[in-house]
Amino acid sequence: MQRFKRIVITGKPADPAVRETVDGLRTHLAAPDRQIRIDAAVYDSKGPALVELIDEMDLLIVVGGDGTLLRAARQLLTTEIPIIGVNRGRLGFLVDIAPDHFDEIAAILDGNMIVDERLMLDASIRHGSETVARCSALNEIVLQKWNTSRMIEFETWIDGEFCNRHRSDGLIVCTPTGSTAYAMSGGGPILHPGLHAMALVPICPHTLSNRPLVVGATSQVEVRVAQEEIQHVRISCDSQVDLTLTDEGRIAIAPSVHRLHLLHPPGYRYFDILRAKLRWGDSTPPC
Amino acid sequence: MQRFKRIVITGKPADPAVRETVDGLRTHLAAPDRQIRIDAAVYDSKGPALVELIDEMDLLIVVGGDGTLLRAARQLLTTEIPIIGVNRGRLGFLVDIAPDHFDEIAAILDGNMIVDERLMLDASIRHGSETVARCSALNEIVLQKWNTSRMIEFETWIDGEFCNRHRSDGLIVCTPTGSTAYAMSGGGPILHPGLHAMALVPICPHTLSNRPLVVGATSQVEVRVAQEEIQHVRISCDSQVDLTLTDEGRIAIAPSVHRLHLLHPPGYRYFDILRAKLRWGDSTPPC
Amino acid sequence: MQRFKRIVITGKPADPAVRETVDGLRTHLAAPDRQIRIDAAVYDSKGPALVELIDEMDLLIVVGGDGTLLRAARQLLTTEIPIIGVNRGRLGFLVDIAPDHFDEIAAILDGNMIVDERLMLDASIRHGSETVARCSALNEIVLQKWNTSRMIEFETWIDGEFCNRHRSDGLIVCTPTGSTAYAMSGGGPILHPGLHAMALVPICPHTLSNRPLVVGATSQVEVRVAQEEIQHVRISCDSQVDLTLTDEGRIAIAPSVHRLHLLHPPGYRYFDILRAKLRWGDSTPPC
Amino acid sequence: MQRFKRIVITGKPADPAVRETVDGLRTHLAAPDRQIRIDAAVYDSKGPALVELIDEMDLLIVVGGDGTLLRAARQLLTTEIPIIGVNRGRLGFLVDIAPDHFDEIAAILDGNMIVDERLMLDASIRHGSETVARCSALNEIVLQKWNTSRMIEFETWIDGEFCNRHRSDGLIVCTPTGSTAYAMSGGGPILHPGLHAMALVPICPHTLSNRPLVVGATSQVEVRVAQEEIQHVRISCDSQVDLTLTDEGRIAIAPSVHRLHLLHPPGYRYFDILRAKLRWGDSTPPC
Repeated sequence: MQRFKRIVITGKPADPAVRETVDGLRTHLAAPDRQIRIDAAVYDSKGPALVELIDEMDLLIVVGGDGTLLRAARQLLTTEIPIIGVNRGRLGFLVDIAPDHFDEIAAILDGNMIVDERLMLDASIRHGSETVARCSALNEIVLQKWNTSRMIEFETWIDGEFCNRHRSDGLIVCTPTGSTAYAMSGGGPILHPGLHAMALVPICPHTLSNRPLVVGATSQVEVRVAQEEIQHVRISCDSQVDLTLTDEGRIAIAPSVHRLHLLHPPGYRYFDILRAKLRWGDSTPPC
Repeated sequence: MQRFKRIVITGKPADPAVRETVDGLRTHLAAPDRQIRIDAAVYDSKGPALVELIDEMDLLIVVGGDGTLLRAARQLLTTEIPIIGVNRGRLGFLVDIAPDHFDEIAAILDGNMIVDERLMLDASIRHGSETVARCSALNEIVLQKWNTSRMIEFETWIDGEFCNRHRSDGLIVCTPTGSTAYAMSGGGPILHPGLHAMALVPICPHTLSNRPLVVGATSQVEVRVAQEEIQHVRISCDSQVDLTLTDEGRIAIAPSVHRLHLLHPPGYRYFDILRAKLRWGDSTPPC
Repeated sequence: MQRFKRIVITGKPADPAVRETVDGLRTHLAAPDRQIRIDAAVYDSKGPALVELIDEMDLLIVVGGDGTLLRAARQLLTTEIPIIGVNRGRLGFLVDIAPDHFDEIAAILDGNMIVDERLMLDASIRHGSETVARCSALNEIVLQKWNTSRMIEFETWIDGEFCNRHRSDGLIVCTPTGSTAYAMSGGGPILHPGLHAMALVPICPHTLSNRPLVVGATSQVEVRVAQEEIQHVRISCDSQVDLTLTDEGRIAIAPSVHRLHLLHPPGYRYFDILRAKLRWGDSTPPC
Repeated sequence: MQRFKRIVITGKPADPAVRETVDGLRTHLAAPDRQIRIDAAVYDSKGPALVELIDEMDLLIVVGGDGTLLRAARQLLTTEIPIIGVNRGRLGFLVDIAPDHFDEIAAILDGNMIVDERLMLDASIRHGSETVARCSALNEIVLQKWNTSRMIEFETWIDGEFCNRHRSDGLIVCTPTGSTAYAMSGGGPILHPGLHAMALVPICPHTLSNRPLVVGATSQVEVRVAQEEIQHVRISCDSQVDLTLTDEGRIAIAPSVHRLHLLHPPGYRYFDILRAKLRWGDSTPPC
């Protein structure tokens, strides 16, 4: 049985190494009963873009870095189409397959794979009982100060209970996937991808005991920004979409009903990637 | 219906404030069909100690600080007897009821309560396929250096996968309850008690990217200590029991099959306690 | 001998407690050969403002919080006029005298005092060999991202040597005075005020080993921002002045030739203030 | 003029790569008016050990890692004999010369060098007005818990003023040289070697606001350990000497009157070493 008959390949535009890998993939994966299409952006050519191919896609292969995969996945948010990440020679958290490991991709196409479902988050800008704007994130939703050098003040509420009144540069709410991205720069913990949880990581909090907080991913987080701060706040999703608030200053953050479906070859181990990316094998200062 | 007919009260020994509260509790909670017994240690008197009363106990009331409750709970580990914590005038994470709030305790005895089941961890010193020593923890299990001024080296394995080779002063594996105790001093995150997870917090790790890691509480953690380090390592449970390793240097850490059953009055809110204990309402440095 | 014949008192505007303290000070400090003038802003009245009184001032008394003192001191930057800080009932790092401790102020006026000279920093926006804008800071100079949700990239050079290429939310360069303010939220160390040094504290750095760096206060720091980032960067001094860069993207940060001259009563101890402000006496989580 | 006529070479014992480099150095540096002697420990041979050669030494060359140099320097503590550090192929903070860069060493011997004087610290175990034991450190003096799983309590006094009452796993007092070693694992800042300062870094402090403190290196630090803790405390110098306290529990820590004299080739830049060792050029997590 063939699970993935219609494959689309996308990648970082205007990158010769990416094009070379895409060419190689097209050749190696070619098979009589398999359709392979390439996102026109890869070759900067005319033809259908990724978003136009969604209805004819059983599987997406992304060639590039983690950022490339995040941008591509953003276009498939509600589709649950599985994704394979191929790097350009440098391992990523999400693009875990080396560019010349065609056998690993072939194994996946043969149904020999690890399915890795990743939590996503939705941010909703609330106004009364309405949602006036919405965005989704694979990594993190950030409440951040904007256009000001002063700290901002806001409250967090979790499942309807008052959690804290913050004074800080902002707040990162991250998924396990995002826990090794921006949230880590903010001092957040690593969340194992198998953990159904999210972390609230305050950015430069005024109160030193205002530490990262991990809650179950069934929780509903609400952030309420004081009236006078609203113009100095934006809600960012994966650093790719920046939303403004209404004058009510309320944002709801909750787990998405959708998941990111990553496919890995059978030898994939999360901790191997983690060690390599965080250079845990290396030693630096003396003793 | 009376749920708790046989109540035992214990508390910090040799503490006049504790005795006063225990006296008050005995008076206020007295009822015809209710048996109330006091741990002899409270009055430094003859009579049955807490551990001798276990078989005649539906409920334990602990008067003191969080440490008092931890020590008492350690004696009930496998019993699943519910516990109420009464402080001596200063709020604790676990002893959340003020000493003069007899009405809150009465409410609980009437069945009006929040049941708060807390994860516990078991540490097993392994040798071959045997467990040669074991201890349980409500807060944390710590692999710590002992009798040396040098860092120790050890490996962590999670669910059979190699996680990391550490060089540090040790490793804290904490429950959500313990996440606001010693693990917080080590830089760990706050884990909401409702989260079925544990955090692995390295103590002064040589590699700066060796950050706290949160995994699901169904995970099995194994720590392997190098032969030459074994004499310089101890396994501590809640800072109350210190175990030595065998020459194999293997420790298994896993969730306990038992839970700590805390009972709270209906108004209990975890975040209220957290804010009060971490002084989130206060502000300190200027801006 | 009278050192301070011409005293000016300023304070937080529109604050009844401040006015009451200012009234008290005027009464208690009145003396035949002493001129006492009040900044009109305190009473929201007509009359000379603080800045207009500079030439007739031997001493400034500031009533309010640390922020009030910072704002007042900013107007005296190049004058070296000594300052006494009186709080409104809540201790500050800089406003260390309680509002009813008139005797402590009298002691200072009698020449019985601790003189506490604090380092200040100057930031210069450079263009070719010119300085096109300049600001001074008692606490910190901050290179911060502006109007963007992405990290910014910039280089630091110290005394003409390349230090680092940063990717972060920005950089705080703080004085010892500022080390317990915003820089502390960013993870910076406490610098004793007697230390002639400044700290460079990266804000949420992408590279985890990019830790706070302390250099001598004779050092010249230069920050170079990449062309494409310049519009997404501001230079802030004490969160009160925000400067834009030229298209060269260069900022020089160096110790000011001026000092802030704080006067304290004889019993002043820096560590007493530090303990009180950082609540070192308190204990929070259990053990 | 020849500054260094009598050169001693030492290195990590029982290491073929070290021996090879030592052989190469002996050959390349040979000159008619220059005496070159090798520490017998390098070849595991009979002959004078490093400590026996001190009186006939103008310069010491150390081949190995930073630890090798620290151990060798410990034997020259009061001699002020200058030291050159040669690594075995992997850059160190102190052993900055690559093993085949004979020209750089030749440049130094010709007087073409950067002289880098590093602060050292002395720890004295006090009893009444006596010092009963003493040790010196290039990196750090550590007050550490010993043989216990509980935190220890102690006070810090700086220049006769009470600083803080600590509850923690200990305290690191480091030099600028040591700021990139163990103190960094404890969360301490980087201190530029040109800064005449030391950092007090608490290890896992119970109070989260108990942050690293940097004071001038003219300060005298005294640590006072409570009577009941004394058996659970050791004073370690560079992790190489562990001292016990007397029943008074007092330790004085102060700058040494001696310096470590490192010699570097003319191209040496501290920040180049720092970037390489801390991998500041690398990037790890995605964005």
